[in-house]
Amino acid sequence: MKKVNIAILGATGAVGQEMLKVIGERNFPFNELKLLASKKSAGEEVEFQGEKYIIEEATEDSFKDIDIVLCAAENHISEALSPAAVKAGAVVIDNSSAFRLNEDVPLIVPEVNGEDVKNHKGIIANPNCSTIIAMTALNELNKYAKINRMIVSTYQAVSGAGVNGINELNQQIEDLSKGNPVEAKTFQYQIAYNLIPQIGDFDDEGYSQEEMKMQNEGRRIFHNPDLKVNCTCVRVPVYRSHSESITIETEKEITPEKAKELLAKSEGVKLIDDLANKKYPMPLDTTDQDLIYVGRIRKDITNDNSLSLWCCGDQVRKGAATNAVQIAELLIK
Amino acid sequence: MKKVNIAILGATGAVGQEMLKVIGERNFPFNELKLLASKKSAGEEVEFQGEKYIIEEATEDSFKDIDIVLCAAENHISEALSPAAVKAGAVVIDNSSAFRLNEDVPLIVPEVNGEDVKNHKGIIANPNCSTIIAMTALNELNKYAKINRMIVSTYQAVSGAGVNGINELNQQIEDLSKGNPVEAKTFQYQIAYNLIPQIGDFDDEGYSQEEMKMQNEGRRIFHNPDLKVNCTCVRVPVYRSHSESITIETEKEITPEKAKELLAKSEGVKLIDDLANKKYPMPLDTTDQDLIYVGRIRKDITNDNSLSLWCCGDQVRKGAATNAVQIAELLIK
Repeated sequence: MKKVNIAILGATGAVGQEMLKVIGERNFPFNELKLLASKKSAGEEVEFQGEKYIIEEATEDSFKDIDIVLCAAENHISEALSPAAVKAGAVVIDNSSAFRLNEDVPLIVPEVNGEDVKNHKGIIANPNCSTIIAMTALNELNKYAKINRMIVSTYQAVSGAGVNGINELNQQIEDLSKGNPVEAKTFQYQIAYNLIPQIGDFDDEGYSQEEMKMQNEGRRIFHNPDLKVNCTCVRVPVYRSHSESITIETEKEITPEKAKELLAKSEGVKLIDDLANKKYPMPLDTTDQDLIYVGRIRKDITNDNSLSLWCCGDQVRKGAATNAVQIAELLIK
Repeated sequence: MKKVNIAILGATGAVGQEMLKVIGERNFPFNELKLLASKKSAGEEVEFQGEKYIIEEATEDSFKDIDIVLCAAENHISEALSPAAVKAGAVVIDNSSAFRLNEDVPLIVPEVNGEDVKNHKGIIANPNCSTIIAMTALNELNKYAKINRMIVSTYQAVSGAGVNGINELNQQIEDLSKGNPVEAKTFQYQIAYNLIPQIGDFDDEGYSQEEMKMQNEGRRIFHNPDLKVNCTCVRVPVYRSHSESITIETEKEITPEKAKELLAKSEGVKLIDDLANKKYPMPLDTTDQDLIYVGRIRKDITNDNSLSLWCCGDQVRKGAATNAVQIAELLIK
């Protein structure tokens, strides 16, 4: 591995902070490290591996001599600054959804389609969190027997809305315990002790943006333009890990035994499926983990060539930061 | 309506208490009212409609002159005492799962198959809460176009485990806020800020008892022995209302527009589906309500003759107590 100069764009957000943490944990071989954020955060000090870093305001001129930009900023910021970074010679690994469906931009889950990284033209997209989790979980099953159809119901953590989401859940729980009125600013409604079946705006067919990502992005990641995904995305009062109830229809049968065998050796996956001992994935157990936990694997009793399973993964880590750093590792290999 | 003598068996539990409340709210025309529970609770005083009632210990001799027993007790108590009640001349409306698959015992959701009540031989079963909620939501759709297959993921409230479930969630939230260790007694694991994909024991195929109820009971309620249901049941940190993400396959097409038209006039259902104004069912909104809220109705983009929807209902009320009192109303009609 060669040492490179890296920048984190959006370094003060939940994903940006986690990217920094993951860089440290994985000993990502960097030379220079630049932490970029909005003007508001510029000047703040961050300690990392015993050194002090000053947050700089991100502008078009921020990317001189930078080799890799890990972008954890919102769409409009990524759209505004990524071209400048590419022009300055950097490769942008972008966690926003701005470029994910652009044919010139590889969309990568390293365990699944890492080889696509070579096709980049300066920007590489990090997929949506719930999509990364599902694709990582299903990768080996899809290789064994092509997945034609997925029916997914998600149980998505408040961290999907960043630090504000976590703070809002905490604040609401506290306010309710004191009998104070509850305020919803980050989410559409109270999320404490509630569920909200909306993540993103709805399209004309009645699907939310988050729901369509699983099909749109999943097709690119699995190299299967015919993949059909019916997704229902629901916000739940859980901190960091997304969970997904998934039923897949495959072109040939995968027995539950075969599925377990495949999942036990799947890269990025931990098989947790021992019902007699009440072992199955739970979001609490995957917090701060990079692996996607998969379990509850069983034949779909309503259909042939169909399996159901349950998976959980930390959406800030494998669902965002870790996946982005893994892509950076592919780049410098 | 004639006035009858009624007994509530299991009067101190969450469902038993709610039955009493519902009897009052609906002005159920009773003459005598007997509150039965375990020896432990015997002697406790309950005020109801300005009168004082003493909890009596439930024994085989408790049912003299009783016309209707609303049974909110556990399976083994219902199995032990229901025959004695029937022998004494009462009709038992049983909320346990003990008799639900007994061909001699009608299994009733009044809005769906109320006419089956006439076939009883002393015992009538109240279906499982998540089944009642789904069947009520889907009733008019099933009448319009027979439902062949259902794929369901549930989001089930802690009240499904009774008062203990609610107390455990509260205790865990409080302990966590104080940094104290968390104890799980009612549920398998911590439920606060977590999800548990297990409700009931698992069968050899990897389905939980709760998951199989939807198919086993649904077939009886819809009078469709071929109904196929693939259910994934998950406990969520919500107090009282269950939510369900449901995809149905029907023998002919139901357009989303037609589905909304049918649901708008469905008995026991409130259609909440106005995405532009962020209106959809949420468990918080159905707390203490008898109606099942249905929304997020859309064509399943992965299949013909297939629809997806989202519904919520208070599992203590329509999922248990209200449905039982509705059955009692059918009996005295």
